[in-house]
Amino acid sequence: MPPDPEDRSVPIDRLLAFAEKMLQTVDVPEEDARLTAHILLQADLRGIESHGMAHLVDFYVRALQSGRTKPRPDISVTRESAAAATIDGDGGLGFVVGHHAMGLAIEKARETGVGIVSVGNSTHYGAGAFYGMMALEHDMIGISMTTGGRLMAPPGSRGQAVGTNVLSLAAPTPRSFPYVLDMATTVVAAGKLEIAARRGRPIPEGWAVDGAGRPLTDPTMLQSGAALLPLGGATDTGAYKGFGLALMVDILCGALSGFGTSAEIEIGTAAHCFGALRIEAFQPISQYLERMEGMIAAVKRAPKEEGIDEIHIAGELEHALADERREAGTVPLHPAILEGYRVAADEFGVPFDLTEAP
Amino acid sequence: MPPDPEDRSVPIDRLLAFAEKMLQTVDVPEEDARLTAHILLQADLRGIESHGMAHLVDFYVRALQSGRTKPRPDISVTRESAAAATIDGDGGLGFVVGHHAMGLAIEKARETGVGIVSVGNSTHYGAGAFYGMMALEHDMIGISMTTGGRLMAPPGSRGQAVGTNVLSLAAPTPRSFPYVLDMATTVVAAGKLEIAARRGRPIPEGWAVDGAGRPLTDPTMLQSGAALLPLGGATDTGAYKGFGLALMVDILCGALSGFGTSAEIEIGTAAHCFGALRIEAFQPISQYLERMEGMIAAVKRAPKEEGIDEIHIAGELEHALADERREAGTVPLHPAILEGYRVAADEFGVPFDLTEAP
Repeated sequence: MPPDPEDRSVPIDRLLAFAEKMLQTVDVPEEDARLTAHILLQADLRGIESHGMAHLVDFYVRALQSGRTKPRPDISVTRESAAAATIDGDGGLGFVVGHHAMGLAIEKARETGVGIVSVGNSTHYGAGAFYGMMALEHDMIGISMTTGGRLMAPPGSRGQAVGTNVLSLAAPTPRSFPYVLDMATTVVAAGKLEIAARRGRPIPEGWAVDGAGRPLTDPTMLQSGAALLPLGGATDTGAYKGFGLALMVDILCGALSGFGTSAEIEIGTAAHCFGALRIEAFQPISQYLERMEGMIAAVKRAPKEEGIDEIHIAGELEHALADERREAGTVPLHPAILEGYRVAADEFGVPFDLTEAP
Repeated sequence: MPPDPEDRSVPIDRLLAFAEKMLQTVDVPEEDARLTAHILLQADLRGIESHGMAHLVDFYVRALQSGRTKPRPDISVTRESAAAATIDGDGGLGFVVGHHAMGLAIEKARETGVGIVSVGNSTHYGAGAFYGMMALEHDMIGISMTTGGRLMAPPGSRGQAVGTNVLSLAAPTPRSFPYVLDMATTVVAAGKLEIAARRGRPIPEGWAVDGAGRPLTDPTMLQSGAALLPLGGATDTGAYKGFGLALMVDILCGALSGFGTSAEIEIGTAAHCFGALRIEAFQPISQYLERMEGMIAAVKRAPKEEGIDEIHIAGELEHALADERREAGTVPLHPAILEGYRVAADEFGVPFDLTEAP
């Protein structure tokens, strides 16, 4: 979705400081608050407005305030072998639980070549890409999956029954940008409807259906019995594949962790699964990178549609945008989000100084 | 695709014997011929007509005859650690290479909890589901991926540039059927167009585009510059997700094995990746199965569209069909396939006795 002309440019350093302070106000330890603010910011830098700072107050701070999310969870490994582990997140912030679990997957991959860590009893972890990308600096491929909100209508059904479960994979390339896939298994993530609603815009047909199964264009109806369509859209264009991917993610997160799948678990809770593959356990890294370069170059050589200058791989444009925003020192936030911040800052007695950058 | 009224019922035992004989005629060792015939038959039993016995002669036997596929490959492990390995398939039959590699992944998962095996220098391995399903009897989740034919047009392009790469996952359930996802990352597998062409039927818009990017309904055009669309179809309904999944599979198969991705490798060759996760390494199997039952039951409880009696999970209908066909002792084959068999049987001096069952 293109940026909104109403958006304000918010200085990154002040935004980070504000987010850390707000999280500490609801009893999150300093280190965890810093980590959470960092992960949220990465989403905004990469243009993933649906999974970044927009949710800081209304979603995360409020959940901590109400006790639905624990600020000081006792994260524990409940089962472990050389390449596998299960983690109980104790209802903590998904960012903190996820960062811990992905760290363990990386540690295992260093020893055995592969690490898979299934996680139960967690909460929303933001954008999936962050965790997979933790593997990159270790010359590993990183995988991150999570249950999403129960908003998907399986093919043949009319109602919300399964999560918008997310699959993400990050892999090193020899280019300036890594390969970073990060996708909900619905046609679009729920956050895309939230953004459209905030901006008073309709959504295209093919994203969602109302309670009677008719195409939905009003993004505000998602909370009133409407449902998101699985990737693929209709049955004869592969909706059962998007649905199948959603259950695949559920199996690796919710069943393997023993916590429960998106069809069953309490709203606000989440299960995840993380994976790390050490490239040198399979292949000299130079050979791997050569094959990656071959793939990227071939994609970019493909004959283009009229009006298309370049074909991009997953994560490429997000990487360029993040560089641009880091350089500028600001990220855009919608005025409605900033107003929510201001109200919460007043309430918690936190100074609010996210004025517009020049 | 529903069965064709022209299809003939072919007795399973005679079909297996015929396939084994044909493969041995082109120098495949008896054991490998039996394995290959078995895997091909599983696809037909499960109704995956696009990946079964229909390809026996025109695809596999002809490739062996011409030397493009090696009947007696020297399959070797080129790199190995506790949970990871890379296999060089030496240009052998994908069935034989894949079966060997999945076996190694299962062995590793028994020791460390997880096994991932990347495979290069292989050929077409039939339906991906078979290999993941090998994990089921070991109380493991099985994963199988492969590069597919270079027939996908990336979003923004008009031409064939990337494979119809396949992702498959099989997981135990407490029901009579396992969960078995097996999907090309295009809207449909290329085999679906081949079947439509054989039957003289058009294909729906939304599956493929011609060389100018216009919707294609003539299935015979795929060999003339047309291309398959990625799962998601158009850009605003998530085509970049299907494309992203295709590259994900390419990375884990073609780059990780060092062999090369679908955008680059020679037509007729393939790279794969197999994974096995031992459930007990993560969770008591009873707890896992309880969560699976919860998931399946919740999906089946979802409100249904008019005219829909039941919502099915991936692999459920295929399992029921396989039971039915095993019971009947026959699988359907199109007369054009049987005619191809008859001609080849004559040519190789193999008795042809696949007459119609009563």
